[in-house]
Amino acid sequence: MRATATRDQIVEAALSLVADRGFTATSVDDIASAAGVAKGSVFYNFGSKSGLFEAIITEGVARLTVALRTASDGLHGHAALEALVTELLGQIRAHPDFAKLMIAETFRTGRSWQDSIRLVRDESMGAFAAVVAEAWPDRDPSLTAAALFGATLLAGLEWLVFQPERTLDDVRAAVLATVH
Amino acid sequence: MRATATRDQIVEAALSLVADRGFTATSVDDIASAAGVAKGSVFYNFGSKSGLFEAIITEGVARLTVALRTASDGLHGHAALEALVTELLGQIRAHPDFAKLMIAETFRTGRSWQDSIRLVRDESMGAFAAVVAEAWPDRDPSLTAAALFGATLLAGLEWLVFQPERTLDDVRAAVLATVH
Repeated sequence: MRATATRDQIVEAALSLVADRGFTATSVDDIASAAGVAKGSVFYNFGSKSGLFEAIITEGVARLTVALRTASDGLHGHAALEALVTELLGQIRAHPDFAKLMIAETFRTGRSWQDSIRLVRDESMGAFAAVVAEAWPDRDPSLTAAALFGATLLAGLEWLVFQPERTLDDVRAAVLATVH
Repeated sequence: MRATATRDQIVEAALSLVADRGFTATSVDDIASAAGVAKGSVFYNFGSKSGLFEAIITEGVARLTVALRTASDGLHGHAALEALVTELLGQIRAHPDFAKLMIAETFRTGRSWQDSIRLVRDESMGAFAAVVAEAWPDRDPSLTAAALFGATLLAGLEWLVFQPERTLDDVRAAVLATVH
């Protein structure tokens, strides 16, 4: 129980620092200090700073993918798409630092965690691609999924970073009116 | 003439390195070496690494904004939107490193060049917002612009990073079918 709490504190602190400053500008000392744990605890739990970051991405993508698949389970076409957009916006609101990190790292190719970040595309965008492939077989599933994911993600970040006074309903309505 | 060429070489080298590795992980030594110039030349032209990065963002956004405004000049509604999507995809193809950097930095809040990056949102997304405000006054211009910009940018990066064998026409068709 204690070990899990420490691990979670480290992940939360690292996410928040890295989302704002970037990976290289964030030291293990900064992370340990923000998490309120000893520096050795970061290495004990994750092996290295890269190991920590890889764990953050892998766990975040897994959480997001489960949420998206669950939200659209049993739905098809427009109903499934609405559920995915709504769930993705809810996940961006619940985990804004992860959303920032995801968009910052997805298209970089010079990082050691490139294989992990590729999961973002394959699994999270995959939830959108599956709906497209089933409901609109004449559309290109992966390019359409990227467009849908991008529309939702950028509108969601615009909301949280620049217009936090808006409601999830406002943002969802704007995205759905755009991609309907 | 000579000075401009040196300056351009530094900007191109820095863009390419920072787009892949991130800002902090890229040293002025790396940039000077990739540009084939002396380290002092970087400081002489830009004052500091942050100054260089700020120049890259400011110049890149200015170029993108002019391109978008020119492409949609005199057009309205769907025709203007089509022109903006096509032009943004062309700009992503012509300047992929800048596109990666733009998406990586737009929503970060802990960087010294935060004010410059805000221009991305205000000016480049503003080209989309202006078309929306004129043609679809019942839509929220800034949230809709973020959705349109995000759909185009993520589909464009998906294309360049993961599916380079696709054509601009494929990608444009997928984006326009999604946001029509």
